[in-house]
Amino acid sequence: MTDFTATRAMFDLPEGIIYLDGNSLGPLPRATPGRVERAIRDEWGAHLITAWNRDGWMDMPARLGDRIGRLIGAEAGSVVLGDTLSIKVYQALASALELRPDRRVILSDTGNFPSDLYMADGLVRTLGDGYSVKTVAPEDVAAHIDGSVAVLMLTEVDYRTGRRHDMPALTARAHAAGALAIWDLAHSAGALPVEVASGGADFAVGCTYKYLNSGPGGPAFIYVPPRHADIARPALSGWLGHEAPFDFDPAYRPGAGRERMRVGTPPVLQMAALEAALDVWEHADIHAVRACSLALSERFIAEVEARCPDLALASPRDGAARGSQVSFRHPEGYAIMQALISNGVIGDFRAPDILRFGFTPLYIGEAEVLGAVDVLERIMKERLWDCDDFRKRSRVT
Amino acid sequence: MTDFTATRAMFDLPEGIIYLDGNSLGPLPRATPGRVERAIRDEWGAHLITAWNRDGWMDMPARLGDRIGRLIGAEAGSVVLGDTLSIKVYQALASALELRPDRRVILSDTGNFPSDLYMADGLVRTLGDGYSVKTVAPEDVAAHIDGSVAVLMLTEVDYRTGRRHDMPALTARAHAAGALAIWDLAHSAGALPVEVASGGADFAVGCTYKYLNSGPGGPAFIYVPPRHADIARPALSGWLGHEAPFDFDPAYRPGAGRERMRVGTPPVLQMAALEAALDVWEHADIHAVRACSLALSERFIAEVEARCPDLALASPRDGAARGSQVSFRHPEGYAIMQALISNGVIGDFRAPDILRFGFTPLYIGEAEVLGAVDVLERIMKERLWDCDDFRKRSRVT
Repeated sequence: MTDFTATRAMFDLPEGIIYLDGNSLGPLPRATPGRVERAIRDEWGAHLITAWNRDGWMDMPARLGDRIGRLIGAEAGSVVLGDTLSIKVYQALASALELRPDRRVILSDTGNFPSDLYMADGLVRTLGDGYSVKTVAPEDVAAHIDGSVAVLMLTEVDYRTGRRHDMPALTARAHAAGALAIWDLAHSAGALPVEVASGGADFAVGCTYKYLNSGPGGPAFIYVPPRHADIARPALSGWLGHEAPFDFDPAYRPGAGRERMRVGTPPVLQMAALEAALDVWEHADIHAVRACSLALSERFIAEVEARCPDLALASPRDGAARGSQVSFRHPEGYAIMQALISNGVIGDFRAPDILRFGFTPLYIGEAEVLGAVDVLERIMKERLWDCDDFRKRSRVT
Repeated sequence: MTDFTATRAMFDLPEGIIYLDGNSLGPLPRATPGRVERAIRDEWGAHLITAWNRDGWMDMPARLGDRIGRLIGAEAGSVVLGDTLSIKVYQALASALELRPDRRVILSDTGNFPSDLYMADGLVRTLGDGYSVKTVAPEDVAAHIDGSVAVLMLTEVDYRTGRRHDMPALTARAHAAGALAIWDLAHSAGALPVEVASGGADFAVGCTYKYLNSGPGGPAFIYVPPRHADIARPALSGWLGHEAPFDFDPAYRPGAGRERMRVGTPPVLQMAALEAALDVWEHADIHAVRACSLALSERFIAEVEARCPDLALASPRDGAARGSQVSFRHPEGYAIMQALISNGVIGDFRAPDILRFGFTPLYIGEAEVLGAVDVLERIMKERLWDCDDFRKRSRVT
C-alpha cells in the first residue's frame, strides 16, 4: 500500500481524535491558516480593490477549477468554482433541459442528496409547462431511462450508504436514449478516480469541503464539457458570467465556455483556503488514494462485523460498488454516534439509523481504523450509548 | 460633526494611501484576521464537524442577518445571509412574481446594476409564459408604474452616479398600483439610513463587502418582511432552507420565515470576517455616518469644481438625492483614475467616463478629502494621466 506519511503531515488534526468524517467536512490542512491570512493581510489589506487584478482574485474560480478538473478527469478549461452545490445543480439542470427542449422529465433516484431533488423541484415549478421530476429506487434507474427522459440527474455515491452508481454505464444508457446526464460528485471528487470527460458526463457538479478539504462552506464547482460550453444557457445569468463584465452592458451576453457558469463575486477567503488545500494533491495520486481507502474500508467492515454483531452493514459489500465511506445501521444509531464522538471517534449519523464512517488515507491509516473499532466495540459491549445524555444531544451534525 | 476617531482606529489601512473605494470593496478591519484565524484554528481545526453546532456556524446567517437588519430598519428575524447578491435578486424576484400571479411585468431602470437586470432576464426566460422585464430611465420610473407591473425592482443608489431613488415614495406608488417593490441596497446598507420595514419594502437584498467591510466575496443578504415570510416561495429551494434539513426528507417543505431563503452550506470563513466587521457598528451610528458622509462629499465637490474645471459632476448636486459616493465625468476618466491610483488615491472607474469616489467617515476624514483633491488637481494640471502607461492598464477594477 502506498505510503501516505507525506500527506498525513499536511493536516492539523487534534490530538486524541480519530476523524472519520471527512465525507462531511474535511479537516484543516496545515497550510490553510497562513494562506488565508496572506489573502486577508497582504492582498485585501495591502492592495484593497486593486487585489482583484494584482493578486489574481478574479481568475481564481477558473485557476482552481483546473486543479479540481485534473482530479475528476476533466478537460483543461472545463471546470469553474463558485456558489454552493445546490446552486450548481440548478444551473446544470436548467442548461441541460434547454439542450433537450422536446422532453420534460428529469429522472433521479431516492438515494440522491435531498437538496438536489429540492432544487430540481424548484426549477420544475418555475419552468411549469409540463416539466416534472421522476424519482425511482437507485437499482431501478437504468430501467427507467427511456425516450421521455430529458436529463438523468444522479449523485454517484449515496450520501447515506456509500453505494456507488456505474457512472459510465448509466451515462451511456442515457445517451443511447437521447437524454443528458448530470453527475453530482459531492462524495466522489477527491475520494476516488472520476473520469467525467471519457465517461461522457454532460455536466458534473460537486463540493470542495468534503474530500477536497477547503473548509466549512467552501465553494462548489461545475464541469461543462467543451461540446456544451458555448451553447449552454446559464439560467442564473450573473454579471461575472457575462462576456465582458466590466463593460456593464445592460444586455446579458454569456461568457465563453465555463465562464458563463459564474454568477456573482467569488468568495476570495474561501478560495484561498481551497487553494492551500489543493496543494495536498501534489503529493497524492487519486488512484493510490482509492486503493488504500478500499483496503482501510475492508478492514473496518471485517473488524466491526467480527466484534460488533449488533451493527448491520448498510453499504455494499463489494468495494467497487462503494465510495469512500462505510455505513452501518442500528436502531440506536444516533446515541451510538454521540457516544463515539464523546470518546474521540468522530463519524456522523444520518436519519433514521445510519452511522457513517469515511476513510481517506490522506490522513487516516490502519491505526485509526483499529482504534475506532476498539472504541466502537467497547461502546457496544458496555452499552455506553444507552443513556439519556447521548439520546438527547442536538441533532445538527 | 461626530468624531469618528474610534472607528478609524478599527481599520487597518495601508500607509500613504487615501482609500475612496469602499463603495466597491471596504478596507480590512483590524479585528478580521484574528476572528478568521479563530474560525479556522479553534473552530474548524479543533472541533471539526462538531463546530457546526458547537461554534454556532449553522446559525450565523440568521445571527449576522439580525445585525445587518438593525442597520436597514428591518424587523428582528427578517434578514438572512448567504450566496451572492445576484442569487438573492433571483430569489426575491421569483418569490415576488409568485405573490402577484396575475401580472407579468418586472419594471426596472437603466441605472440598475447590470447583474440585477441579467438575473431578471434569466428568470423571465425560465418562466416563459409572457413574463418580461421593462427597463426605463431612472427619472421615468414613477410614470411607468401601472396596473401591468407585478414587481418594481430597483437599486436605491446608482452604482455609477450615486443618484438615489426615493425609496418610500416609489414603494408607496408601487403598492398603490398593486405591485410589489424589491430594493437592492448594495450601495445603501452601511452608507445611509434605510428603513425597509417602515418604508414597506416587499423584499430587499444587498451585499456586505462594500460599506459593511466583510471582505472580498463576503455573503449577500436578503430581507423578507413578516407579511411575506411564511408565504413566499423560495424558487432556489436548497436543503438549508428546508423546515428540517437534517431530516433529509425527500420532499421539500420550506422553513419558517427567512430561513427558507437559505440555500446551501454557508461560507463560514467569510461569515467570520463579516462578524468581525460588524463590530465597527457598535461604535458608529448610521445617521451620524450619513451626515458626515454628506459633509465630506460636499467639500469634495466644491474643491474639485474649484480646482479641476475639466471634470464634470456626474452625481446629483442635491445631497439628499445622492448616496455616499460622488462621481465625475471625463473622456479620459480611465487614464485619470489609473494616475490617481499610482499616486496613492484609490477610487475607481466605470465605463464609459465615470470616476467614482466613495466617502465613508468610518475611516475617511477631511484630511483625506483634501489630500485626494490635491493629487487630483496636480494630475489634471500637469496632465499626468496623458501617457500610454495609464491608458493601457488592465481594466478589471
